[in-house]
Amino acid sequence: QSIFKIAVLPGDGIGPEVVTPCLEVLNAAGAKTGGFALECQDLPAGAHEYLRSGNALPGTTLDGCRAADAILLGAMGWPEVRYPDGTEIAPQLDLRTELGLFAGIRPARLIPGISPVLADPRAEALDFVIIRESIEGLFALRDEGKVVDDREARDTMVITREVCEPLFDFSFDYTRKRKARGGKGILTCVDKANVFASMAFFRKLFDERHALNSDIEVNHAYVDATALNLVRRPWDFDVMVTENMFGDILSDLAAALVGGMGFAPSADIGKDHAVFQPCHGSAPDIAGKGMANPTATFLSGAMMLEWLGDKHNNQAAIKAGQLVRNAVDAAFKNGIRPYEVGGKDGTAAITAAVLAALETA
Amino acid sequence: QSIFKIAVLPGDGIGPEVVTPCLEVLNAAGAKTGGFALECQDLPAGAHEYLRSGNALPGTTLDGCRAADAILLGAMGWPEVRYPDGTEIAPQLDLRTELGLFAGIRPARLIPGISPVLADPRAEALDFVIIRESIEGLFALRDEGKVVDDREARDTMVITREVCEPLFDFSFDYTRKRKARGGKGILTCVDKANVFASMAFFRKLFDERHALNSDIEVNHAYVDATALNLVRRPWDFDVMVTENMFGDILSDLAAALVGGMGFAPSADIGKDHAVFQPCHGSAPDIAGKGMANPTATFLSGAMMLEWLGDKHNNQAAIKAGQLVRNAVDAAFKNGIRPYEVGGKDGTAAITAAVLAALETA
Ligand SMILES: CC(C)[C@H](C(=O)O)[C@@H](O)C(=O)O
Ligand SMILES: CC(C)[C@H](C(=O)O)[C@@H](O)C(=O)O
Repeated sequence: QSIFKIAVLPGDGIGPEVVTPCLEVLNAAGAKTGGFALECQDLPAGAHEYLRSGNALPGTTLDGCRAADAILLGAMGWPEVRYPDGTEIAPQLDLRTELGLFAGIRPARLIPGISPVLADPRAEALDFVIIRESIEGLFALRDEGKVVDDREARDTMVITREVCEPLFDFSFDYTRKRKARGGKGILTCVDKANVFASMAFFRKLFDERHALNSDIEVNHAYVDATALNLVRRPWDFDVMVTENMFGDILSDLAAALVGGMGFAPSADIGKDHAVFQPCHGSAPDIAGKGMANPTATFLSGAMMLEWLGDKHNNQAAIKAGQLVRNAVDAAFKNGIRPYEVGGKDGTAAITAAVLAALETA
Repeated sequence: QSIFKIAVLPGDGIGPEVVTPCLEVLNAAGAKTGGFALECQDLPAGAHEYLRSGNALPGTTLDGCRAADAILLGAMGWPEVRYPDGTEIAPQLDLRTELGLFAGIRPARLIPGISPVLADPRAEALDFVIIRESIEGLFALRDEGKVVDDREARDTMVITREVCEPLFDFSFDYTRKRKARGGKGILTCVDKANVFASMAFFRKLFDERHALNSDIEVNHAYVDATALNLVRRPWDFDVMVTENMFGDILSDLAAALVGGMGFAPSADIGKDHAVFQPCHGSAPDIAGKGMANPTATFLSGAMMLEWLGDKHNNQAAIKAGQLVRNAVDAAFKNGIRPYEVGGKDGTAAITAAVLAALETA
């Protein structure tokens, strides 16, 4: 059987509270399928690590991430802990840059049993994916955006061929794989090509790559219209690919449609490495209270197993990922309701329900 | 009685189709109140004007706008008509820059009778406003964002003290006036201060101006979290102020919550001038078919009358603006339903219903 080395970065606040049960669930799924095992190493990173050591992402942690087969992250950042320029400690951004994780996968799928937020009955089966470019765009040059004598500050949106070509190829490939599993097979390029030269370039590169992936149907949409249409007819979307900042905004909107951030998993994927983490933050307001919803982390873990399985041609890991997702669905079908959606089930209850569903799978 | 000179820029597509009935409605309201009259001058601008004369915003049009008391705009742009760099003809952006219209007011109010898009019953009384900074931010330097030898393209997000101080002062004032009419009196600064130096500067300037407007309660929110919360609990918002690009995205999201772009009015306001226009575009798919929803234009016209009344201390104009808004509400209460929300009422039917409601007001 294969051993997958997992770098685990629990991080701040509720981070450790959702990562620990996630590993329990992943191991339980692995025990059911056999065929692989996870070898986990906890590594420090985040706002509290910054307070302790002066470095939010120590070199040893980064080395550990590079050496691992995959990285599982909890949540990072803490409101009062800031860099001298006032921005927040967010080593997840540095990880994306350092490891070249250009493709941020943000699936939005309504778990059966969770009430749709939209009134339209079509919202009961939401299932779409936003691919957020994750290392450039407006997030490209954090250090250049300097305040000039207290009268002006700038940031630069950068779009490069070097990053966008692999991003779009990845997106076409992702859409194709999804189609093979029943997806619509439509990839929408979301930009603001009507106003910005950088975005017109983004669209041009997308069209170039489409020419090489012409089996996939494509759409073009502006980011403002997409924000509107994600509310008016989200059921029409399949896969979207967009700039970093736009993806940040739209993926939070998408999370709202499926119940909130506690239901929003993510993967940041590059050529060699990948980080899996829930989209939510460290949630200082509920940290330490056992109230965190670990669902997004479980689903991120499922994505991790499937990604590992795909990459290493390990069918058991793929199967285990599916088992986890099915167990989550089953737990919700059995009535589990996190605080986030007005329920009374805390982290422990949700974890127990998912483990029980795995057991009987 | 006062004569207000209105520069009318019907523009492209459905622009003229919504502007003409709007003027009819505004004049009817004025006839009811007396005390003012509108003197309108049609001026050419837009994509078709660009095709005709090579200039989307001719100097004579700009002069006419400067000489007017207010500017009423329909819609501009046409998909196939583009500048050589691939971006769209959007003279409304040039107008904002030329006339220094820094404050883009984008109210989102659910008209009684329109079905809420959200399942939660609290969505029945949505009423909040987004103030979009409208001359800088990511839209600041359109010409600098050049493609460098087909490998890279950039745009710059610029935040200046010069623009933000009046923007925030305007926003505090707006929130205060709204409070006097029953608003919550809460102003939320929406940014991404956790990541970007420009956005941390935006927040810092906001806090500085808050110190001088401490009667108004404030909140801070990140743009991604705001996209989520506009779906999860939009009823908690009162007034928001945000960067240009963020405001573009969030105001479309907000429009979706109240029925679509045909229900979303706007005003772009500066020190001396103001443009009033519906948020929707020229809608090539329905242009010429009599299907356009003129509601957003009527509501923009109402904002124009109120703004003129406020500025020139003309109570009749303020009253006329309110009459228009009430007539719109009455028409919808009487069952008017635009195509946009699945109804069968075209521009003429909606206009007739609003005029009839005005008549009996
Ligand atoms: C924490 C923050 C810096 C981060 C981002 O903006 O990318 C988060 O919002 C996310 O979506 O991963
Ligand atoms: C037409 C377009 C350039 C414009 C903008 O982005 O500002 C529009 O979307 C708007 O919101 O007024």
